[in-house]
Amino acid sequence: MDALGGDLHGDATRIIERLAPLQSATPDALSFLSNPKFHKDLATSQAGCVIVSPAAHEVAATRGDFIVTPDPYLYFARLTQLWKAHLAPVQEDRIHPSAVIHPQAQVDASARIGPLCVVERGARIGADTVLKANVTISEGCVIGARCLLHPGVVIGADGFGLAPSKDGWVKIEQLGAVRIGDDVEIGANTCIDRGALDDTVIEDGVKLDNLIQIGHNCHIGRNTAMAGCSAVAGSAHIGANCTIAGAGMVLGHLTLADGVHVSAASLVTRSIHKPGQYTGVFPIDDNASWEKNAATLRHLHSLRERVKSLERALEKAPAEQNEKTS
Amino acid sequence: MDALGGDLHGDATRIIERLAPLQSATPDALSFLSNPKFHKDLATSQAGCVIVSPAAHEVAATRGDFIVTPDPYLYFARLTQLWKAHLAPVQEDRIHPSAVIHPQAQVDASARIGPLCVVERGARIGADTVLKANVTISEGCVIGARCLLHPGVVIGADGFGLAPSKDGWVKIEQLGAVRIGDDVEIGANTCIDRGALDDTVIEDGVKLDNLIQIGHNCHIGRNTAMAGCSAVAGSAHIGANCTIAGAGMVLGHLTLADGVHVSAASLVTRSIHKPGQYTGVFPIDDNASWEKNAATLRHLHSLRERVKSLERALEKAPAEQNEKTS
Amino acid sequence: MDALGGDLHGDATRIIERLAPLQSATPDALSFLSNPKFHKDLATSQAGCVIVSPAAHEVAATRGDFIVTPDPYLYFARLTQLWKAHLAPVQEDRIHPSAVIHPQAQVDASARIGPLCVVERGARIGADTVLKANVTISEGCVIGARCLLHPGVVIGADGFGLAPSKDGWVKIEQLGAVRIGDDVEIGANTCIDRGALDDTVIEDGVKLDNLIQIGHNCHIGRNTAMAGCSAVAGSAHIGANCTIAGAGMVLGHLTLADGVHVSAASLVTRSIHKPGQYTGVFPIDDNASWEKNAATLRHLHSLRERVKSLERALEKAPAEQNEKTS
Repeated sequence: MDALGGDLHGDATRIIERLAPLQSATPDALSFLSNPKFHKDLATSQAGCVIVSPAAHEVAATRGDFIVTPDPYLYFARLTQLWKAHLAPVQEDRIHPSAVIHPQAQVDASARIGPLCVVERGARIGADTVLKANVTISEGCVIGARCLLHPGVVIGADGFGLAPSKDGWVKIEQLGAVRIGDDVEIGANTCIDRGALDDTVIEDGVKLDNLIQIGHNCHIGRNTAMAGCSAVAGSAHIGANCTIAGAGMVLGHLTLADGVHVSAASLVTRSIHKPGQYTGVFPIDDNASWEKNAATLRHLHSLRERVKSLERALEKAPAEQNEKTS
Repeated sequence: MDALGGDLHGDATRIIERLAPLQSATPDALSFLSNPKFHKDLATSQAGCVIVSPAAHEVAATRGDFIVTPDPYLYFARLTQLWKAHLAPVQEDRIHPSAVIHPQAQVDASARIGPLCVVERGARIGADTVLKANVTISEGCVIGARCLLHPGVVIGADGFGLAPSKDGWVKIEQLGAVRIGDDVEIGANTCIDRGALDDTVIEDGVKLDNLIQIGHNCHIGRNTAMAGCSAVAGSAHIGANCTIAGAGMVLGHLTLADGVHVSAASLVTRSIHKPGQYTGVFPIDDNASWEKNAATLRHLHSLRERVKSLERALEKAPAEQNEKTS
Repeated sequence: MDALGGDLHGDATRIIERLAPLQSATPDALSFLSNPKFHKDLATSQAGCVIVSPAAHEVAATRGDFIVTPDPYLYFARLTQLWKAHLAPVQEDRIHPSAVIHPQAQVDASARIGPLCVVERGARIGADTVLKANVTISEGCVIGARCLLHPGVVIGADGFGLAPSKDGWVKIEQLGAVRIGDDVEIGANTCIDRGALDDTVIEDGVKLDNLIQIGHNCHIGRNTAMAGCSAVAGSAHIGANCTIAGAGMVLGHLTLADGVHVSAASLVTRSIHKPGQYTGVFPIDDNASWEKNAATLRHLHSLRERVKSLERALEKAPAEQNEKTS
C-alpha cells in the first residue's frame, strides 16, 4: 500500500483479503467511494477499510478505517494493478507453443503471445506487449510496447476497398498496414483494418473496447477511448482525448477535433471542429407512444409548414379584422 | 414421432425424408404451420404431412395428412431436435486434440470441446456443454451444464475499466470472472467480459445470438433472449424473460424489470421498471423525405415554442377583438 | 502497365516505386484522381505520374506525367492488383499445417487455407478461394471459387431459432447450411448463420465488410455490398446490387428490391420494393440542442394535435368574427 500513498486513518496492520464494491464488501475487504451517487452506501458498508476523497473524510470517520486520497478512483485503479501482480500465477510460456509466428515476424523478447495467436510475416510486436488467445496480427503490422490485445482481435485485415465496374465490384488491394502505438488496449473481437495505400494509425494510449470496427486509413489520436460496438469508417481522423460511447459511429473521411465526445448510438455525419458532447439518438419510449410520435415525425416538415401558415394567418388576421371592424 | 405426441390424421406409415417450410416442401417432407400469416400457403403446400393447430384442422384436412397439436411451433422445435439426433454423425473426439486446455481447468467428462478452443487456468466447463471451434474461456470463468457456445465466442476478456489521470488512462485490472448458468446458448463471436471486482452473471436459460457485447458486472436474468449485435454496457441488471431485439442496447448501471422487451436498434437510456415493449428508432424513409424531416427535427423545440405563441395569440385574439368590436 | 491500357502522356521509362494518395505522393509514386473533390490537390501533387479522367486532362498536363483513362478509380483498383501480385511473397504452404480440416471436407487443390482455420465435415471450399487465419467453416457449408475470407469469419454457426415453452426456450435445431457463391469477400469476424431448414444463400460477387451479422435463411443478391457492423435478420431477402452502409440493419422476413441503398445506421422495418436511397437516423447535434429536441419529440404527436386545433380555431375564427362584427 505504501506504493500508492494516501493517508491511512485506522489500523495499519489490518489484513486485506480482497477488493470489493461498497455494497458487497465484507470486513476483510478494501473498498472505495469515487462517485458521490454512492455516498449513501458509505456509512453502511461492511468494508474493513474504504478509500475516500477529502470531501468524504467526515462520513468515513464515523464508520471505521479509511484512506484519504485526492482521487479515489485513480488510487483504486492503481491498487487493482498491485493486487493483480500480487495474485499473478506462476509465469507460463512466454510464447505459447500453439501460436503460429512467422519466421520473418519480430516479437520482442519481453512480449507474451497467447495460445493460437497468428503473427504474420513482417509483423512486429513491442516490448511487454501481451496478446491473449486467438489474436491475429496480419502481415507487416506493427504493435508498440505495453499493449494488451484481447482474444479474437484482428489487426490488419483488408480494408473495404472496391471500385464499381460493369462486371461487378473490383477489389482495391490494400497495400498499407496498421501501426499501433504504445500502451494501447484492444478489446475482444475488435478489428482494425490495414490501409489502402498509407497505414491505419492508432496513437499511444488509445483504449478500445470489444467488437469495434476501425476502417482503413483511420487515424485515432492519443488517449482516445472507444466503448463496445463503436465504429469508425475509412479515412476518418479522430483527435486526441476523444471518447466514443457504445455503438457510437463516425462516417468516413470526417475529422473530429481533440476532446470531442460522441454519445452512445450516435452517428457522426459531419466533421466536428469544436470539443464537446454530441448526441443523436431517438429517445426510447413505450412502444405505443413511440409509434404515434414516429408516425408524426414522417410529417414533421409539413407540420412546420402548417405552423408557418398559421403564423402568417395570425399576422394577417388582425389587419383584416381591423379593416372589418373599422 | 411417438415421442412428441400430437394427433396424426392420415398415413402413419408414410416415410418422411426431410423437414421443410410449407412453400418449398415436397411430398417426402414434413412441414408445419404456426404463423397465421402463412395460412394461405397451407392449402397449396406439397408437404407429405403438416403439423397444425386445432384452428387449422379443417383446412389441413382438405389437403392431406396432418398432425394436430396445441403449439405447432414448439412441436416443430422438438421435432428438429429428434431429427438432428437421428442425423448426428459418428461421435468424434470429445476433446479435439488441437484444443488448448490448461491443466488447472476442469472440463466435465461429458462436455465436448471443439478444435482450437482455449480453456484457461481455473475455468470450469459443465456437463454436456459443447464448445464449437475457436471458443475462448478465460481464467476462472465458469460455464454451466448443457450450454452451447458457437465459434469465436470470448468469455472473460477484461471489462473496459479505466481511470483518467493526467498521464492518460490507468487500467483497472478486472479481478472478477464470468459465471454462466445451465442451458445457455451463446452465438458466434459474442463477447462476455469478466467483472471488475464481482463476477458478470448470466443466469440459466439465457439465449444470446451472434456478435453481442455484454459488459463487465452485468447480470442477465433467467430465460432472457438477445438478438444479434445487441449490447449491454457494464453493471446493467437485466431481468428474467426479457428480450432485446437486434442491435438493441442498454446503457451501463441501468435496471430492466422482468418482462421488458426492447425493440431493434433502440437504446435504453434509463431504468425500466414496468414490463412491456419499448422502442426508440428514427423511422426509415426515402432519403429526400428523411432529409427534410431530419432538418426540421433540429428545430423541433423552437417549433413547439412557435405553437405555444400561436396558442397564446389565438387565446388573446378573441378578447382583443371583443374589446374592439364592443 | 500495358495490361491496364490508358493513354500515357509523359516519360514511359519513369520508374515507379510505390502507389500513393495525391497529397502524400513523392516523385517516385504513381497516384490517381477520381473524386472531383480532390481536384485542387492535383496541381500541387508531387506524384511522378497521375491517373486522371479526360476531364482533368488539362490541369494534369500543367503538372507533369499523367495517364488518361475513362474511369481512374477502376484503373487504380486494377493497378493495386498488379502491384500486389508484383510484391507477393514466395508462396508458402497451400494449407497451413495448423489448420484443422475434416477428412470429409472437400478443399479444391488451388484453394489456400490459413493457419488455425477449421473446415468441418462435409464443407466444400472452391477453386482459388483463400481463407486467412482463424476462419471457421461449419459442417456442410459451401464456399464458391475465388472467395476471400478474412480472419475470424464464422460461416454456418446455428441460426437463432427458439420456440417459447412454459419451461423456457426450446432450441430449433438448424438443419440447413450456408451456400456462398463465387467472388465473394467476407470481412474479419463477420458471421453468416446456417439456415433452419433451407440454406442461407450469398450470391456471386457479394462483398461483406467486418463484424457483419447475416441471420439464418437470408438471401443476399448478386453484387450487393454491405459495410462494417451492418446486419440482416433472419429470412430477409436482399436484392442484387444493393448497398447497406455501416451499421445499417434489415429486420427479419423483409424483402428489398434490387438497387436499394440503405444509409448508415438506418433500420429497415418494412419491405422496400422501389430502388433508391433510404435513411432513418436522428441527426447528431451538440448535446444540449439534442436534449431539447429529443424531449420535444416525445410530445410530437400531441404537438400535431395542437396545430390541428389552431388550424380549426383560425378557420372558425373569421366566421365567428364576422358574426360578431355583423
